[in-house]
Amino acid sequence: MARIVMKFGGTSVANIERIKNVARHVKREVDAGNEVAVVVSAMAGKTNELVGWTREASPMHDAREYDVVVASGEQVTAGLLAITLQSMGINARSWLGWQIPIETDNAHGAARITKIDGSQLIQRFKEGQVAVIAGFQGIGPDKRITTLGRGGSDTSAVAIAAAVKADRCDIYTDVDGVYTTDPRIDPKARRLPKVAFEEMLEMASLGAKVLQVRSVELAMVHKVRTFVRSSFEDPDAPGMGDPINPPGTLICDEDEIVEQQVVTGIAFAKEEAQISLRRLADRPGISAAIFGPLAEEHVNVDMIVQNISEDGSKTDMTFTVPATDIDKAVATLEANKKEIGFDVIQSETDLAKVSIIGIGMRSHAGVAATAFKALAEKGINIRAITTSEIKISILIDNAYTELAVRTLHTVYGLDKG
Amino acid sequence: MARIVMKFGGTSVANIERIKNVARHVKREVDAGNEVAVVVSAMAGKTNELVGWTREASPMHDAREYDVVVASGEQVTAGLLAITLQSMGINARSWLGWQIPIETDNAHGAARITKIDGSQLIQRFKEGQVAVIAGFQGIGPDKRITTLGRGGSDTSAVAIAAAVKADRCDIYTDVDGVYTTDPRIDPKARRLPKVAFEEMLEMASLGAKVLQVRSVELAMVHKVRTFVRSSFEDPDAPGMGDPINPPGTLICDEDEIVEQQVVTGIAFAKEEAQISLRRLADRPGISAAIFGPLAEEHVNVDMIVQNISEDGSKTDMTFTVPATDIDKAVATLEANKKEIGFDVIQSETDLAKVSIIGIGMRSHAGVAATAFKALAEKGINIRAITTSEIKISILIDNAYTELAVRTLHTVYGLDKG
Repeated sequence: MARIVMKFGGTSVANIERIKNVARHVKREVDAGNEVAVVVSAMAGKTNELVGWTREASPMHDAREYDVVVASGEQVTAGLLAITLQSMGINARSWLGWQIPIETDNAHGAARITKIDGSQLIQRFKEGQVAVIAGFQGIGPDKRITTLGRGGSDTSAVAIAAAVKADRCDIYTDVDGVYTTDPRIDPKARRLPKVAFEEMLEMASLGAKVLQVRSVELAMVHKVRTFVRSSFEDPDAPGMGDPINPPGTLICDEDEIVEQQVVTGIAFAKEEAQISLRRLADRPGISAAIFGPLAEEHVNVDMIVQNISEDGSKTDMTFTVPATDIDKAVATLEANKKEIGFDVIQSETDLAKVSIIGIGMRSHAGVAATAFKALAEKGINIRAITTSEIKISILIDNAYTELAVRTLHTVYGLDKG
Repeated sequence: MARIVMKFGGTSVANIERIKNVARHVKREVDAGNEVAVVVSAMAGKTNELVGWTREASPMHDAREYDVVVASGEQVTAGLLAITLQSMGINARSWLGWQIPIETDNAHGAARITKIDGSQLIQRFKEGQVAVIAGFQGIGPDKRITTLGRGGSDTSAVAIAAAVKADRCDIYTDVDGVYTTDPRIDPKARRLPKVAFEEMLEMASLGAKVLQVRSVELAMVHKVRTFVRSSFEDPDAPGMGDPINPPGTLICDEDEIVEQQVVTGIAFAKEEAQISLRRLADRPGISAAIFGPLAEEHVNVDMIVQNISEDGSKTDMTFTVPATDIDKAVATLEANKKEIGFDVIQSETDLAKVSIIGIGMRSHAGVAATAFKALAEKGINIRAITTSEIKISILIDNAYTELAVRTLHTVYGLDKG
């Protein structure tokens, strides 16, 4: 017997037929004698509809009222899944954020969970009841409904798993796990049986989009063993109920990964843009003068490279922003030209960032050199490089993205498994 | 300055454009210096969609989970109206049933309000804030969401008006008041300036459908002056903000109606059916033997007429049920034939009930005789009659409904005003 949190996203509960399929996944775990909490998102498309209405009502809407409107989507799914489970003879009830309660801070629209009291849920587990929990929502200090921001149901699930000390948290989604790279780019991509939390963090923030970044951070802090698996497989297919190795990818502590690969995956982000500020005075506070105004305008700055000029008195600063933010970024910098004191501003779009990720590279030299050599052999020009302990990111022309991903996937032995 | 509760139904908030129109009605009252609470229904069609999903999930759904799903409709409207009001510079916030709280009993799906704490709302009025309240919902003793049954938002509005001691409760709907009869049947129908609570109760239960019966009962008990008025008129048209006589019909205590008419209106209900049980033993408990089983099957029995048979030893029992329930009613009676002990069962459909309503008839003789004479002159056969202090109901063939309504409307002087 285990205590399991199961989370189903919007496409998995898009209509009643799919909700019935979700109920079969839940029944499988209940029949195996497990204690189960299920966290659900809004039916696919519903959140967009609700958000659209709030914008139509007023583009400058109050985030507290936005939360009231948008949180209703998960409420509907929770009730419908509880009804469906009951019709299959399973003792189930729905829980809304304020009923558990899932306490959050006051940042309506993007609230952070501050405390979850798991005692009521645990009591109901002992009575044999399945908890069906509306994801994405909580209750703020002012006793009003809050939402956790897009994708917040993943965070709800992991936080609840931590609060009830679940043995694992199964995130059911429309893919069957985490891959070495995007299979649409490289058909040789393979599903990874295990990924370390740190690696998953890099993959999620780089657009691998399987799990919300905050949910992975939370899982890492609380050491919640998290499976990414498919909701679209037959719930009763062989192995689906395997308590140790269910099909999917386990996101876990690195200690649990016995045979550490040097490189785990190749991620990428298209539609990047680059900005270079030339001949800046190399003085203390120059970074703050540049990036402060950009942060105020909510421009998400990524790879930052600073070079000293030839005579050592001036410096060049180069960094990337999402292509959609390039105009805003340049305008903001021009408006602050005097304070920053740059000579020339240059910008370029149609770039892509390709990243090599692997916890194993901490103890291996030459990982970066292998990439540079492989890309050079394909004639791919590297425009910028940033590295961290477990990641190497390389900025290239957008047009070479697929070639670069496949080249790196092969050179690090990911094709073979 | 007055304290006003305004209620808007589903068609009045069917889309964002209409919600903006509702906001203009609210702004008019706020600008006049009034303290305002607004009660809203779900956007037209939403409740049906949500109810449909619960049935699709399971025809035998748990009423507690049904409430979780269905209450979301009003939640969405409340948030959207609050956003819209804020965009017009009005200080407004939404309130859900559990936040006020609106306490109810545990009868999920058809809960009754047990207590409303108006103190938070009154405090906010004093701070100049408009309360936008999700109608139709409350919180049960188990701290779960309850709903009040179809049309329950009217009841929410009246109950809140009573709780905050409002000067009046304006029910905005798709008609501009209560009429002497249905204008689609008789173009000479006139809007009534005032209707007594008791009269409105009879009209509502007879299918005049403007106000939910329970809301009128509640208004009567708490003496809440209730206006029925149109949400589709221009919010800023002359007279719309009249604090004493806004356009519409005032439902009020009979003392407030100075010139009492003998007859106030002619109501009707089509699609009635009649059942007659012949030659019953006239013994104590015979009514219970007949109507007990029907009540258990939720058959709504209406006009009941009992005749003694010629020799005095036997009796005939005749009563009406909605035509949609006739098969269920007959089957139930046949199943209980032995206990009831009737000889023959006869049933007939295609009947209609026409009712003459007026508080003034309490002090006037001959009101019924006038109706019988007028209908006889038109060759309309009367199949059954029941009377109360303020109502005379007559059962006739469906085909004569319109003729009977127009004839009675004229004979009681309602054409002229």
